[in-house]
Amino acid sequence: MTITAAFYRGDKTFEVKQIEAEAPGAGQVQIEVAFCGICGTDLHAYLGHMDARIGFDRILGHEMSGVVKAIGEGVEGWKEGDRIVVRPLDHCGDCPACNRGHKHICHNLKFIGLDSQGAMQQLWNVPAHTLHAIPENVSLRDASLIEPLAVACHDVRMSNVTEGEDVLVIGGGPIGMLVAMVAKAAGGKVTISEINENRLALARKLGFETINPKEVDAVAEVLAKTGDKGADVIFEVSGTQPGIDLMTAVGATRARIVMVAIHATKPQVDMFRFFWRELQLIGVRVYEPEDYDKAIASIAAGEIDADAMITDIRPLDKIGEAFAELIANPNAMKSLLQING
Amino acid sequence: MTITAAFYRGDKTFEVKQIEAEAPGAGQVQIEVAFCGICGTDLHAYLGHMDARIGFDRILGHEMSGVVKAIGEGVEGWKEGDRIVVRPLDHCGDCPACNRGHKHICHNLKFIGLDSQGAMQQLWNVPAHTLHAIPENVSLRDASLIEPLAVACHDVRMSNVTEGEDVLVIGGGPIGMLVAMVAKAAGGKVTISEINENRLALARKLGFETINPKEVDAVAEVLAKTGDKGADVIFEVSGTQPGIDLMTAVGATRARIVMVAIHATKPQVDMFRFFWRELQLIGVRVYEPEDYDKAIASIAAGEIDADAMITDIRPLDKIGEAFAELIANPNAMKSLLQING
Repeated sequence: MTITAAFYRGDKTFEVKQIEAEAPGAGQVQIEVAFCGICGTDLHAYLGHMDARIGFDRILGHEMSGVVKAIGEGVEGWKEGDRIVVRPLDHCGDCPACNRGHKHICHNLKFIGLDSQGAMQQLWNVPAHTLHAIPENVSLRDASLIEPLAVACHDVRMSNVTEGEDVLVIGGGPIGMLVAMVAKAAGGKVTISEINENRLALARKLGFETINPKEVDAVAEVLAKTGDKGADVIFEVSGTQPGIDLMTAVGATRARIVMVAIHATKPQVDMFRFFWRELQLIGVRVYEPEDYDKAIASIAAGEIDADAMITDIRPLDKIGEAFAELIANPNAMKSLLQING
Repeated sequence: MTITAAFYRGDKTFEVKQIEAEAPGAGQVQIEVAFCGICGTDLHAYLGHMDARIGFDRILGHEMSGVVKAIGEGVEGWKEGDRIVVRPLDHCGDCPACNRGHKHICHNLKFIGLDSQGAMQQLWNVPAHTLHAIPENVSLRDASLIEPLAVACHDVRMSNVTEGEDVLVIGGGPIGMLVAMVAKAAGGKVTISEINENRLALARKLGFETINPKEVDAVAEVLAKTGDKGADVIFEVSGTQPGIDLMTAVGATRARIVMVAIHATKPQVDMFRFFWRELQLIGVRVYEPEDYDKAIASIAAGEIDADAMITDIRPLDKIGEAFAELIANPNAMKSLLQING
């Protein structure tokens, strides 16, 4: 059977072409992909930052939704027509991380859609253990948000936000906004710090307090909001040195600071403040199965404003335009590609 | 009554002189100080780094033991002759930290012996709430180790070290050595990383595994010791950039890194590694009452080798010599001043 697939060819280019679909192998399920979102990591790949890892024959995509099309040998529990999302992590099962139950950060983790072919193709074979069913009341469009939402669910779970706590989210991009929504659903009083006025307007529309650290003294604002206590929980999602400076300056005693952003260079960190206030820093990466369960339940319960998160939808053959536009437009939240249908 | 007291006069000088003792005020207890250790913080003060905070009429000292001599108005539960140590923290009781139960890191904390007069005097008046009784089988000499030992007990408690975990202590000075002893008593398999060969020899004599990162690849050593897993718990006690680099490089997935050292400048920290391995950083400062209880119980149970920790004892009038020698001798552990007796 012939399908359409988009291959990354290096230097901000994709080739969209017809290929012959392969049947699912043993232990695999074949998915008819419905929608696939473009992740910040996909943008990094597009910009050429991951060429050494992914090469020039890679199909990207992991923020997806779809329907089971065929079942490989030995797979049980799934049938044609099941509506699903994929948790795109393939662990080795035999490293120190897997042995201590941290399979999602396996020492030899393969991230499906980067280290193997992804969802920006019409039929996609994946290991059956990566599937999660989605309920009838969640549309396939909205379900494509489940993967980034599971990131946010993991981050908030690791932070242990409880009812009434003061939460600061530093950085109001797609992941920051989802973290804010999940933290609010967990009972947090959430403020978003962001320098882009359009993102700030969206944050306010979604009911969050906001701070623009280019306009006001962000530390003074947080202290004023919290009666000089500081924030109980801080999510650093900006990936910037000013974000790193803010996170330590605004923490209450024993505040939990969650490191969501990926800092490729080593920022200077105020370690004295960790000592002085007994701050805690919690590194977080991807998600565990229970975070997918939570993300699916949250979206089914209407806790997430999917309309606010989805900026646009284009067909797969407009992939080049979709990536270029997302790079050019700092106001955008999620861009989706419609892969089938 | 006339007593001897040592006043810091700035620029590495002390004046030892006779003063008239004051009677204990309301809520205070008067202590006949027996021994007083010299802390790293006292050395900072001696070197002039804390002049703005402490001034030039300050009596230092907080690592002490002593005997109750007199009771101020309204004090209950203590009597003349009680053998005690002082937990030298005076909190305000009405700040955001106190209100959330973190009195030991009160926003307005007064550290007795820095922000008010300390134990390097023969009779010392302190708030009654700072006292802890010591058992009969603990000598007054050994009891002067309880304050730094309580620091180590706090650090290990905050790290939640459990039986069989691989522990790395970076920095084998007095606090690092005490942290190692307490972590070992908690069931940890402890390795000490240190560059001073004399300290390494002492660490080995005390039964610890050691690494000299000037001589070997410390990361490779820890991975080899732990079957490529890395350390479960890491105490950064060195206060150096190489210590900061090592702490993130050797952590197992979800390793807890305890920030014991006081980093006055902002080191560069590998935040990517916090993400990649989901590392956690735990800031720690001083101690809570239960850490004093634990320190007293540990020393009473013989878990701490006090003889190995105490390098020398001098009378109070040799305070200048004691400080100068401690600065000059990087092999020293604890130097005590004998204040009375």
